[in-house]
Amino acid sequence: MAAPTPAYPLKGGPQTRWNMEFAGKAEELKPTLHRWPRRPQNVIRFVEDETQYFGIRPSKIMKTMQDFEASLWARKSDFILDFGIHMVGYLSMRLDSHGSHMDAPCRLRLTFGESPFDVTMGMDNVKTWISTSWLPDEIVNIDMCPEILRMPRRHSFRYLRVEIIDMSPKCKLSFSDISCECVSAIGPSDKVDAYAFKNTVLDRIDQVSLMTLRDCMQTVFEDGPRRDKRLWLGDLRLQALANYKSFKDFNLVKRCIYQFAAIVREDDSVPACLFEHPVFTPSDDYIVDYDALFAVVVYDYVEASGDIAIGKELWPTVLGCLKKALSHLDPETGLFDPSRGDDWKFLDWQEDLDRSAGSHGLLLYCLKATNKLALLLGQEPPHEHTAMTMTEAAKALLNDEGLVVSGPNAQISYASAAWLALSGAFPQETARTALLKTLDHPDAIRPLTPYLWHYVCEALADVGCKEECIKVMEGYWGKMIEAGADTFWECFDPENRTNSPYGDVRNNSFCHAWSCTPTYLLRGKLASNVLQDQVPKATTVEELDDSWIAHTSAELEKV
Amino acid sequence: MAAPTPAYPLKGGPQTRWNMEFAGKAEELKPTLHRWPRRPQNVIRFVEDETQYFGIRPSKIMKTMQDFEASLWARKSDFILDFGIHMVGYLSMRLDSHGSHMDAPCRLRLTFGESPFDVTMGMDNVKTWISTSWLPDEIVNIDMCPEILRMPRRHSFRYLRVEIIDMSPKCKLSFSDISCECVSAIGPSDKVDAYAFKNTVLDRIDQVSLMTLRDCMQTVFEDGPRRDKRLWLGDLRLQALANYKSFKDFNLVKRCIYQFAAIVREDDSVPACLFEHPVFTPSDDYIVDYDALFAVVVYDYVEASGDIAIGKELWPTVLGCLKKALSHLDPETGLFDPSRGDDWKFLDWQEDLDRSAGSHGLLLYCLKATNKLALLLGQEPPHEHTAMTMTEAAKALLNDEGLVVSGPNAQISYASAAWLALSGAFPQETARTALLKTLDHPDAIRPLTPYLWHYVCEALADVGCKEECIKVMEGYWGKMIEAGADTFWECFDPENRTNSPYGDVRNNSFCHAWSCTPTYLLRGKLASNVLQDQVPKATTVEELDDSWIAHTSAELEKV
Repeated sequence: MAAPTPAYPLKGGPQTRWNMEFAGKAEELKPTLHRWPRRPQNVIRFVEDETQYFGIRPSKIMKTMQDFEASLWARKSDFILDFGIHMVGYLSMRLDSHGSHMDAPCRLRLTFGESPFDVTMGMDNVKTWISTSWLPDEIVNIDMCPEILRMPRRHSFRYLRVEIIDMSPKCKLSFSDISCECVSAIGPSDKVDAYAFKNTVLDRIDQVSLMTLRDCMQTVFEDGPRRDKRLWLGDLRLQALANYKSFKDFNLVKRCIYQFAAIVREDDSVPACLFEHPVFTPSDDYIVDYDALFAVVVYDYVEASGDIAIGKELWPTVLGCLKKALSHLDPETGLFDPSRGDDWKFLDWQEDLDRSAGSHGLLLYCLKATNKLALLLGQEPPHEHTAMTMTEAAKALLNDEGLVVSGPNAQISYASAAWLALSGAFPQETARTALLKTLDHPDAIRPLTPYLWHYVCEALADVGCKEECIKVMEGYWGKMIEAGADTFWECFDPENRTNSPYGDVRNNSFCHAWSCTPTYLLRGKLASNVLQDQVPKATTVEELDDSWIAHTSAELEKV
Repeated sequence: MAAPTPAYPLKGGPQTRWNMEFAGKAEELKPTLHRWPRRPQNVIRFVEDETQYFGIRPSKIMKTMQDFEASLWARKSDFILDFGIHMVGYLSMRLDSHGSHMDAPCRLRLTFGESPFDVTMGMDNVKTWISTSWLPDEIVNIDMCPEILRMPRRHSFRYLRVEIIDMSPKCKLSFSDISCECVSAIGPSDKVDAYAFKNTVLDRIDQVSLMTLRDCMQTVFEDGPRRDKRLWLGDLRLQALANYKSFKDFNLVKRCIYQFAAIVREDDSVPACLFEHPVFTPSDDYIVDYDALFAVVVYDYVEASGDIAIGKELWPTVLGCLKKALSHLDPETGLFDPSRGDDWKFLDWQEDLDRSAGSHGLLLYCLKATNKLALLLGQEPPHEHTAMTMTEAAKALLNDEGLVVSGPNAQISYASAAWLALSGAFPQETARTALLKTLDHPDAIRPLTPYLWHYVCEALADVGCKEECIKVMEGYWGKMIEAGADTFWECFDPENRTNSPYGDVRNNSFCHAWSCTPTYLLRGKLASNVLQDQVPKATTVEELDDSWIAHTSAELEKV
């Protein structure tokens, strides 16, 4: 996610109460990134095809990459390379000039494409309320060839468009040794369990989840390697879950937990996000629901890792992180009232969403996780009473038809139904009915982001609707794959290919951690429904990558 | 000058006959460049002022540079810094962010301005037939502050415009330690004679000539440090002359002479220009008049340095460089006939110029220099006879009114009259009349470039019109200074501020070696007319620079 500017106040708020011990522990857990090279697989162009999600499809224009390296490119020409897989890393290439001596500099625009739009729409006239400095193009000027061009900034891409904006008309360029030095906390030789799922769509959903997660796993769990490139608490929670079922990099989660614990604020709240550079610093972004989810992140971690010690160490932090959310409970109704504070309540980017009921469910869910954590740590559950009163209060959120309603207008939304189901406020039957009715309701406010879709899916699985859950996953994440996703996206509107929470699709992130959770559900709650065989095959990340590149190359051959 | 594309054929022509001994000698003479820092002097904006050549004038917007370093700049803001003097070098600066944490990259456009237009017109929609990759702007993306930004490419500028294209709206930038590491073969502590001239205009013309020359003196005599950044033979000739009267860097001239002598072609012709990078290479540009002028370059050098040995060593090269021009002589008329070969005859960028008479004068001038060189070397002058027949033939170029005419349409031009005067084809009185009548003639084709204006001035001085020469210099180079020149320009049209041989003034070079010759004339042929005192004051280049910066700062205070 990106901080909502200007919706969120830019300054002020409680100050950080640094815990340098936690900061030191986080620093010690900093991973050394793995590095490996990737070469482009094909030279392509995109041709119109309205049967495709993006309205265009890739088409090979050269038989081999040897043909490409032998090709000469004149001023104002351009080409698109397809690396066949999404990568995060550092591009380099060799440029040679041919013909007369290169008697003028060469000006190139390099556009790093996560989506087909990135390399076909151009980057002019982007109307977006976040900074256009995120746009994935770079202009470089080269005085003389041969030149080894090494891009100093890390980019996130599958496609590379190279435009020769201008150069001497007396010569042409050739490009060779094009390579991306990929980086991640997870290396090619790292092991991961591979499962055979009941159908290819689920196979791919699982694999793309893993590739999404891997590309976001850097020195922290980044929300997206293109944008914002940093650790957000809500995103961390989902990444950690997916990680426990796949790469099992417990240290990276531990590091991120310590980072947040190191920067708790004077009122015990945990910031929504933090920065590693230029020095480790909290962001002034704050989100009530993310704050409360810190408790769940710690519970999940202790539960998955068995590391009781860190649970005890962070117990005061866990208790503190719930305070702000708890302060939103109306003493009369016992319900979460968003108006009891002007801090940001997120749940989803959906603007029209009334967040009362959803936040109620979310907080109850967090309190219950805290209670469970207390039991793991051998302590008294601290929020038994509040959980009970909130459960009681939640009854007022059900309307006569058994639908969860939210706010003064009794809004019906996926967010409300999902979070109430997850909270366990209702008997499973009631929650299931509410959820299924909501999914069927023509006016229900739908999720905008995979972040909320995850909680909808998890809620379906929890209320015993596993087949419905699989259908939603196939219809949402599966459709992203059908649209050509190598990694899952920050937001996906099956009905509108240019939808964006930022005003312009070119500022969307197409590898976004909060969409990587299908692997968590497929390998976890849904396993018995979707696995061909419960016994996984040990494989390496490299083998997974190779199989994906073989798949994308084969797709290209088809058309 | 820049190679005329596409007017000149791109390929073919005689092959290079490498002389590796000369190449080795040139390499040994390669200077170690001096390096020194320059800081910006003022923050300015340009305001409309139709009394000024560019229609705008600079105005200070901050009292001190300390004020600037304390200023914060938001997204979409921009500023212009004035370094107070033209420089060639490498820009660096420190960027800090203020306010909230920098949560998006920062995209800057840096525009390196030699002229006020460069930093006010923007660099979009430039229509030019040479490459737009010469345009002096760079886009940089900065992921995180603080950052020390070091531009790896050499730039040529006095003004720096910084535009914050976009960045996080949550913070602002400050800029400090902005510095240009200047480079030249001539260092600040190098000595140079300073003269007091009869008026301030001449003082400044002399000084700006020196600053132009210095900025073009790099590892070769570059034509212009912004564009083309390389050694052209015709430009070298004029730079060498100015250098003999000022910096007296004989080695740099010697190096350039050896470079050309190392790459003579199979037909003994000398290429018009050469490249140092990536390896020493001739250009395939060829100009008949530049080729012939190689003889004059060698003669001038031997004459100025007293180095007879190199004259003898290069004697065969000198004889060879005249062949192509000589092959244009019509055996019947004895006149230079441009149509006897399709190689490029330059003389000036003026498209309408008929080059017959001018080329005749130029060749005769070169033959006479060769004859004089022979005498210095103790040899028989080789072209006495041809010089005589060409002198005789030249009579046909005078019309009834005593004007030099050129070509089938008897075109009257400054180029024809000047080169015939310089050639000594006519008695001084005849040449003077022809030249003065041409200067008075309403239809005479005037020069477009300072390159040809130099030869017009030198011709005036030679025919005894020193006061007229001074007037032309004051009216041309003096007007450039009035327009704000710190270095003299590649081309200057007093009547049209946007004139360009390349289609767009933004691709012009505003520090161009071929316009640096006033110092040669003022300190040489015109000395007795313009000097207050014949005895120079020994000074350093640094003192000269400091006085210029004091002058430009004072000018800014005035308005």
